[in-house]
Amino acid sequence: MARNEFGTRAGEPAVDLPDKPDAGVYFIGRIRTPWKERKDCPKNARESAAVCTVELDARFAPALKDVETVSHLVLLYWMDRAPRNLVLQVPGHYGTQHGTFALRSPARPNPIAMSVVRLHGIEDGRLKVSGLDCLDGTPLLDIKPYFASTDSVPQAVVGWHQRKD
Amino acid sequence: MARNEFGTRAGEPAVDLPDKPDAGVYFIGRIRTPWKERKDCPKNARESAAVCTVELDARFAPALKDVETVSHLVLLYWMDRAPRNLVLQVPGHYGTQHGTFALRSPARPNPIAMSVVRLHGIEDGRLKVSGLDCLDGTPLLDIKPYFASTDSVPQAVVGWHQRKD
Repeated sequence: MARNEFGTRAGEPAVDLPDKPDAGVYFIGRIRTPWKERKDCPKNARESAAVCTVELDARFAPALKDVETVSHLVLLYWMDRAPRNLVLQVPGHYGTQHGTFALRSPARPNPIAMSVVRLHGIEDGRLKVSGLDCLDGTPLLDIKPYFASTDSVPQAVVGWHQRKD
Repeated sequence: MARNEFGTRAGEPAVDLPDKPDAGVYFIGRIRTPWKERKDCPKNARESAAVCTVELDARFAPALKDVETVSHLVLLYWMDRAPRNLVLQVPGHYGTQHGTFALRSPARPNPIAMSVVRLHGIEDGRLKVSGLDCLDGTPLLDIKPYFASTDSVPQAVVGWHQRKD
């Protein structure tokens, strides 16, 4: 995935990004995982049962009230090492070209990753969760409760991915 | 929800935000919905079968390749009218105080909303989707394919919300 370190791959055209951002985000914490380099990360979050730690900045600790009653969370985090200007990509593990918005690759105009995680517990403002595959130290953007009523779609299909199997 | 228009409510303490943002986001398009004011929006996206339109900036159109094979998408968008400094909130329709991270309220340190939508079709770089409840003109941040294998958790529970019923 380290295209910015090794250059752009064939079949991965880049576009000009806007001159300046339209809004700013705060890093509200850090995600602690066992993975220090991209090659160590699980290919898929379901591959790993590793319990990771979400460290939240102290100023936001009161915002955790009632989070302990939630079984699953949506975490948003910032994939700060990925290029933002790729519109088509050829992920190494697929070998075929797909549009950025058909992929969950960290390389996207706004490198915001979304993961659904299981909450194991909260202690001193630190959340223990499983279901992550990101690098250690990844900046946290948001924590949301996962509502099965609106967020769970068991029958959802990603056609291009299914055909690959 | 218009706290910024009508002032902060009782039971909704605010915190000091960091002096400056840590990273910038681009608005990559706009979401077109039938709802021009907060009071018109459906309380819950599942209440509405309205088909809305996601307008993507032309520069990113190539990034839609293969998105037409996807049944459901994750949309991330920017709730630019919400205050960012509330750690506890008393949503009008609940009447009880909860932490910001136990709520899906647009008022949060990074006002990034996440919605799972059904894709009805794509025409000239415009996506027809259902499952949204946001205001017309809401800035778009990201489009992701929804993978049932990692994103669907039918048994997920939000304890404080369940007890309310």
